[in-house]
Amino acid sequence: MRPKIILISALVLALAFDLGLAAATGGQDQTSAYPAQELLKLGHQRVFEGQSLKEIAFPLGGVGTGTVSLGGRGNLRDWEIFNRPDKGVNLPFTFFSLYFEEEGRKPLVRVLEGPLTPPFTGQDGIPRDGVPGLPRMETARFIGEYPFAQVELGDRKIPLQITLEAFNPFIPLKPEESGVPAVVFRYRIKNLSSRPVKITVAGSILNPVGFEGEGTIDSVGHPKFGANVNRVRKESGLSGLLMSSQKVKPESPSFGTVALTTTWKDITYLSHWVRGDWWDDLQIFWDDFRQDGRLKDLDDASPSPDGRTDIGTLGLLASLAPFEEVELPFILSWNFPNVLNYFDIIPARRGSVLKNHYAQQFADAWAAADYLARNLQPLEKETRKFKDAFFGSTLPAFVLDAVSSQAATIRTAACLWLADGSFFGFEGCDDQGGCCPLNCAHVWNYEQSLAFLFPTLEKSMRETDFLNNLKPDGAMAFRTSLPLDPKVLWDFRPAADGQMGRVINLYRDWQVSGDTSFLKRIWPKVRKALEYAWVQWDADRDGLLEGEQHNTYDIEFIGPNSMLSGFYLGALLAGQRMAEAVGDVDASREFRDVFDKGRRKYEELLWNGEYYVQKYDKVMEKKYQYGDGCLSDQLLGQWLGMVAGLGRFLPEDHIKTALGSIYHYNFLTDFSEHSNAQRTYALNDEKGLLTCSWPKGGRPPLPFPYSDEVWTGIEYQVASHLIYEDRLFEGLSIVKAARDRYDGWRRNPWDEIECGHHYVRAMSSWGLLLGLSGFEYSAPEMRMGFEPKVYPDDFRGFWCVGSGWGEYYQKAADKVQWVVGLKVISGDLSLKEFSFKLPAAAKLLRVTAGVGSLSLKAGVKVQGDRVTVSWPKPILLKAGEDLHLDVKLQ
Amino acid sequence: MRPKIILISALVLALAFDLGLAAATGGQDQTSAYPAQELLKLGHQRVFEGQSLKEIAFPLGGVGTGTVSLGGRGNLRDWEIFNRPDKGVNLPFTFFSLYFEEEGRKPLVRVLEGPLTPPFTGQDGIPRDGVPGLPRMETARFIGEYPFAQVELGDRKIPLQITLEAFNPFIPLKPEESGVPAVVFRYRIKNLSSRPVKITVAGSILNPVGFEGEGTIDSVGHPKFGANVNRVRKESGLSGLLMSSQKVKPESPSFGTVALTTTWKDITYLSHWVRGDWWDDLQIFWDDFRQDGRLKDLDDASPSPDGRTDIGTLGLLASLAPFEEVELPFILSWNFPNVLNYFDIIPARRGSVLKNHYAQQFADAWAAADYLARNLQPLEKETRKFKDAFFGSTLPAFVLDAVSSQAATIRTAACLWLADGSFFGFEGCDDQGGCCPLNCAHVWNYEQSLAFLFPTLEKSMRETDFLNNLKPDGAMAFRTSLPLDPKVLWDFRPAADGQMGRVINLYRDWQVSGDTSFLKRIWPKVRKALEYAWVQWDADRDGLLEGEQHNTYDIEFIGPNSMLSGFYLGALLAGQRMAEAVGDVDASREFRDVFDKGRRKYEELLWNGEYYVQKYDKVMEKKYQYGDGCLSDQLLGQWLGMVAGLGRFLPEDHIKTALGSIYHYNFLTDFSEHSNAQRTYALNDEKGLLTCSWPKGGRPPLPFPYSDEVWTGIEYQVASHLIYEDRLFEGLSIVKAARDRYDGWRRNPWDEIECGHHYVRAMSSWGLLLGLSGFEYSAPEMRMGFEPKVYPDDFRGFWCVGSGWGEYYQKAADKVQWVVGLKVISGDLSLKEFSFKLPAAAKLLRVTAGVGSLSLKAGVKVQGDRVTVSWPKPILLKAGEDLHLDVKLQ
Repeated sequence: MRPKIILISALVLALAFDLGLAAATGGQDQTSAYPAQELLKLGHQRVFEGQSLKEIAFPLGGVGTGTVSLGGRGNLRDWEIFNRPDKGVNLPFTFFSLYFEEEGRKPLVRVLEGPLTPPFTGQDGIPRDGVPGLPRMETARFIGEYPFAQVELGDRKIPLQITLEAFNPFIPLKPEESGVPAVVFRYRIKNLSSRPVKITVAGSILNPVGFEGEGTIDSVGHPKFGANVNRVRKESGLSGLLMSSQKVKPESPSFGTVALTTTWKDITYLSHWVRGDWWDDLQIFWDDFRQDGRLKDLDDASPSPDGRTDIGTLGLLASLAPFEEVELPFILSWNFPNVLNYFDIIPARRGSVLKNHYAQQFADAWAAADYLARNLQPLEKETRKFKDAFFGSTLPAFVLDAVSSQAATIRTAACLWLADGSFFGFEGCDDQGGCCPLNCAHVWNYEQSLAFLFPTLEKSMRETDFLNNLKPDGAMAFRTSLPLDPKVLWDFRPAADGQMGRVINLYRDWQVSGDTSFLKRIWPKVRKALEYAWVQWDADRDGLLEGEQHNTYDIEFIGPNSMLSGFYLGALLAGQRMAEAVGDVDASREFRDVFDKGRRKYEELLWNGEYYVQKYDKVMEKKYQYGDGCLSDQLLGQWLGMVAGLGRFLPEDHIKTALGSIYHYNFLTDFSEHSNAQRTYALNDEKGLLTCSWPKGGRPPLPFPYSDEVWTGIEYQVASHLIYEDRLFEGLSIVKAARDRYDGWRRNPWDEIECGHHYVRAMSSWGLLLGLSGFEYSAPEMRMGFEPKVYPDDFRGFWCVGSGWGEYYQKAADKVQWVVGLKVISGDLSLKEFSFKLPAAAKLLRVTAGVGSLSLKAGVKVQGDRVTVSWPKPILLKAGEDLHLDVKLQ
Repeated sequence: MRPKIILISALVLALAFDLGLAAATGGQDQTSAYPAQELLKLGHQRVFEGQSLKEIAFPLGGVGTGTVSLGGRGNLRDWEIFNRPDKGVNLPFTFFSLYFEEEGRKPLVRVLEGPLTPPFTGQDGIPRDGVPGLPRMETARFIGEYPFAQVELGDRKIPLQITLEAFNPFIPLKPEESGVPAVVFRYRIKNLSSRPVKITVAGSILNPVGFEGEGTIDSVGHPKFGANVNRVRKESGLSGLLMSSQKVKPESPSFGTVALTTTWKDITYLSHWVRGDWWDDLQIFWDDFRQDGRLKDLDDASPSPDGRTDIGTLGLLASLAPFEEVELPFILSWNFPNVLNYFDIIPARRGSVLKNHYAQQFADAWAAADYLARNLQPLEKETRKFKDAFFGSTLPAFVLDAVSSQAATIRTAACLWLADGSFFGFEGCDDQGGCCPLNCAHVWNYEQSLAFLFPTLEKSMRETDFLNNLKPDGAMAFRTSLPLDPKVLWDFRPAADGQMGRVINLYRDWQVSGDTSFLKRIWPKVRKALEYAWVQWDADRDGLLEGEQHNTYDIEFIGPNSMLSGFYLGALLAGQRMAEAVGDVDASREFRDVFDKGRRKYEELLWNGEYYVQKYDKVMEKKYQYGDGCLSDQLLGQWLGMVAGLGRFLPEDHIKTALGSIYHYNFLTDFSEHSNAQRTYALNDEKGLLTCSWPKGGRPPLPFPYSDEVWTGIEYQVASHLIYEDRLFEGLSIVKAARDRYDGWRRNPWDEIECGHHYVRAMSSWGLLLGLSGFEYSAPEMRMGFEPKVYPDDFRGFWCVGSGWGEYYQKAADKVQWVVGLKVISGDLSLKEFSFKLPAAAKLLRVTAGVGSLSLKAGVKVQGDRVTVSWPKPILLKAGEDLHLDVKLQ
């Protein structure tokens, strides 16, 4: 699927030149922080080794189930399956190990992890719970292609090729199938020796039931433990350990089960290690294991003594002929149905217990494992199709990394999916709890990944926004309190960006889903939310927001300003279009009027020739403003509009120039001279985009908090906007800078941090995919279009909308023959119009359309370099079908 | 003082060969884990750079005052001045910064620290309290020569040579002078530019009064803060900030003061930063500072609002002509008089408040700074003399490192020095508290550094052992409860090693001090303590301990065994000698009888031809024994005897052979195949000495805990014993292995870890100095002798005993002329006998002795290669005087 590497290298040079010139249409020339070759490089994802393995934590688990992360060394870390974020919590004595016996030689044993790395400074040496004293593999290499992670383990003394693959089902548009509380761990082991070998791969795991998900577990002893039961079950398709507790009551937040299972037949096990003094348990287990790779096959379901739990082990046995390969599968699954509301924005509501969605589907951890074992083939197949289509794109590898890694946030503990199907999210994860609660409108604004991958979950957030969180006067509570109740809302001023942004987001969701009936249902609320601007911020309806505008910087901007009024214009335009669609003629006209007025005033008042500013005369006295600053978020509303399908509503030349100014003034290629009294996300010789700068002076003595910071969520929106506007190398430079900071040594690539881990703002990165594909879609209008910004001669890209997902490709066979195609891989797609862009300076001679061997009669319209193919009646593309266009040029 | 490097290189090769052959007199050939050149390398201490700076924390502060540590980057960390260990506690916004203005150029500002290093994974980025967003110096290099630390800071844009030197007075035999709760920070700055420059070095510090010393301080806000007062004081010799709290009551454990002062005249200051919202405080301070390097000179002693404290800044201003150099001095001092007994071994006694010794000397932090400022010159001079004498030795650099770095433990929070002069120590420091309490006899047994450097403090521990902790039946409580009260003792079985070891330790202390009247005073108790063996472990008085012998491995060995009976033999011999000295003839005879019996039985029963073992027939069934194992501590009692001056009491050939076996069997040069279910202090490709091994089989299924671990305290005692017994390269290999593990990247060189940080067992490292010097001393007999194990042709070594300290040197002028000398640098020394060793194969022709220009008539005795010079009446060497011997050979 991917063009061969040898071709790419040649292409890169040609393209770098072409695209560089083609894109420099803004007010300034583009500058690039990296060589073009680096920015356009395709190919495999990064391989992490050595010190870069240290911070790797690749989240595994289903949507709404919490996660356990796979560390770079092949270790399991950050067990956040207990319904709250909890960075740093490990399950003691939970690890995979290998017994290896080459015929005629002394057996060897290894922990199946790469070596531990410094520091080794614990108060008692290296904490024992990670079995640091046992021999382990010499080397580890980690590759993540979300949702698949792979760890290759090597050791000079062990002639085996060992690869751990870990994943779980993750299928766009299928949240249920993507929401199984389980992980597949598959050890692919090949005998590289010329002798037969015997191996055991054993998974040991601590029964954690009773732990409340906060803080750490340091040993088998904990006051909440006791009466823990490990039961060995052997069923037709599945064997393993089911771990529970007789002490924890079913209604308790810590109630639940964990299972470690396998579909492998030849097993050995210990329901629990010896309950001894000192360190007898590990000593006896390890001595037993290393002797012959077989355990006692103990099946003792007696509960553990009070105050302590047990560790159990499941081993998979195999004999391998020389050069034979085997796959040894484990399934780790869990079930913790009760979600303690420890986090509510209304403190008095804390303490209630909510129910997880997944717990409705699965009675316990065993049931989840059983479901996964029975359905693994189709689930894995479709997950792989997604991964192959996505990573098979001709988008730069680091862009795919930025997009896919942040989509993982959907399934971290940053998000909740409750029994009634409602979906919620924190802004991110503090080390030991969600922060801040919940569905924060001004942060979630930026997020696009959920909206495109799982639009039904995104829709739940719109329902919460408009049907629950709107107060009688039209102000939207921009944080959600649980359980949902429109009469019990957070009592805080509304956020202008959050409130206006949600209207644009709704427009996007409507375009993605085509669900006009839903739009009609909530329209009165949407209108009220938008009109609230006239109550609070634009009483004179001149199209600019005035007064105090609370926003995502956690302060209020005062007076007309680029950022908030940009949001407002986008919301007005979205409102106008939606009003039209639902037949609300008055609203449509009024919104349009205000929009038109606003658009003019916005230019008159806020454009300074290089970028848009804030107009407020007390900017040097009043705290926390930006005035003449060049704000990276100044075009945020316009960007949301681009993503949503509203198109440009500000002048194109100003957009391009302003984006160029943002890049020029705010993108630092070195932080060593940067003075930042705020929080620090980029430093030393790192590169990054500042939230704001004052290139023309006028920096207030105390500008708004965060003004000197670097947020990936903003970086991706600006980068994607630059790319939309053909400032390709600038956009890609920003993305590469961000991903270079998250290099596994300095930070975890699957955990971008702002106010918390897995910060949802960074899900703006989906915009990169849209921007680089030049993607346009309207479900209501049944039209789709592409305009690839990279590799137009041989482009392949992933797309996903409400009804289906697949690939788009275009390829030049020669100078006059092109193939353009749209493949539906899952779901379906109804189209009345399809458009693409001609190569530079080419003229269309003829285009023929077909699906499979069937040719379709189509109308063809050419506007400039844009070709639109249309059908009087919609065509329906089903999964597996290609819309195929043969394009002849002259 | 130090031989020139060019000579050394030549010497090393010759010596390596000579010494290697000369020393291989044991049962096995020596093997070395490193090239001899590396093991004998002299010269400067390690320079830490880059990633090796990460774990550096060099403790600064007085004996018994707690410490603050200097990090490798020049940062302050681990503020343990609040009367308890607390690793990881930083004072927010506490840092030094530089304003730099080169004439005619734009000023630059820097935090005076090297760059931050990954990970950067905090939930909000890098924690703000360390001002990560401010520009800082590009490079840092750290060198520690305890008690002096030095950080060189560099930056391409700043043409200054900047060296921070930090230290405090630390003078052997002078605990009072070494016990000032203060640190000197001195910035030595040289202008390397050809233009005049203006600089300010500013120290900012948070007023921490109210903090209770447990956990962390993350910001100015904390419930215990409030009514904190920063007062600017300008006195004739001293100016700066005195920080206190009006909220904390004088009797509270958190009551106290901190001062940041200077003797520099040209200053600028802020008594407190602006008390603002958000991050106004740092923003305003930094913007003020960076503008012109001058602060507002705010002197506002109004208390801080409740729940928050203040940050103050003291800046030192200077103008430097081209190539001019300046020294800018700061004194940081503190006073927290009240020690909460949170730690008592008897839980019911916890909660009482004890008083620090230092708080009797100084009314508050200002008084301590004032004392130090007034007396800095003599105190620093004598501290430097100590450092120069010590680091000027011709001992391998890593040995000096091992000895000096662990002596720092004396002044960490592992030790307490109370108002009545009594001195106590934990085993080490857990992350947030001492562990385990207090004066643990079996751990402190190994410690030699305090005994030689501060024998009066060591004496306090003997008083506690024998006058307080002895129960009526003679059993010694091996942990101490406070306040001292012989009627309130810890109710736990006695430790055989602790109890016997303390008798040997007492003998050592008597030899070091010559304080026979003290010995007489406590003799009845000592006799009782020793005779308790006959009650508990050797009822048949056969000279071997039997039954259950609790010991430092926290379990009981059963039956006769090398380790405990070795202790017993040493104690009996020490007891016999001390009984003789105090005129207790019966005891002397009886101890000797039992000793003689025991010595024979020890050989008959426990020697296996290669090493000494445990004889117990249920070793495979009963848990936690060692049986036929080769225990690294098997000769511990004999080693304590060597250090104490008892000499060999086991057969020399067996000692040498057993030591060789310990090295051969227990020293691992790689841990990658080691299976250890216990705690981990060495791993991967590190080298280290195992506590035990079973080279001939017979490893019990559950051997004693710690058997598979690596403890530096044992490593140093074994290494030093190997060196005593001329197994030089083996001994040095062990030391180098340990110090290589503590390389600043993996572990902190000034914090060796066992059950806690700064573990006191590692103060066995003083034995290396004794062993390599071949040092012998008896104050009661007024004799001293040396027999250097390295560089005998040009040796220089440090010595310290109860009455004084100085240098020993011997040097070959040519093949027949030698100079041998003993220099007293501080205190004095009375001698009746002085001995040294002739070069190999040399015969003495003549020796003349003198002090200064005065020649002394002396008797000369030659026994083999050993020359003893003696005087009928003792000679008294005073500080500054040399005993000088001209030795003619034939």
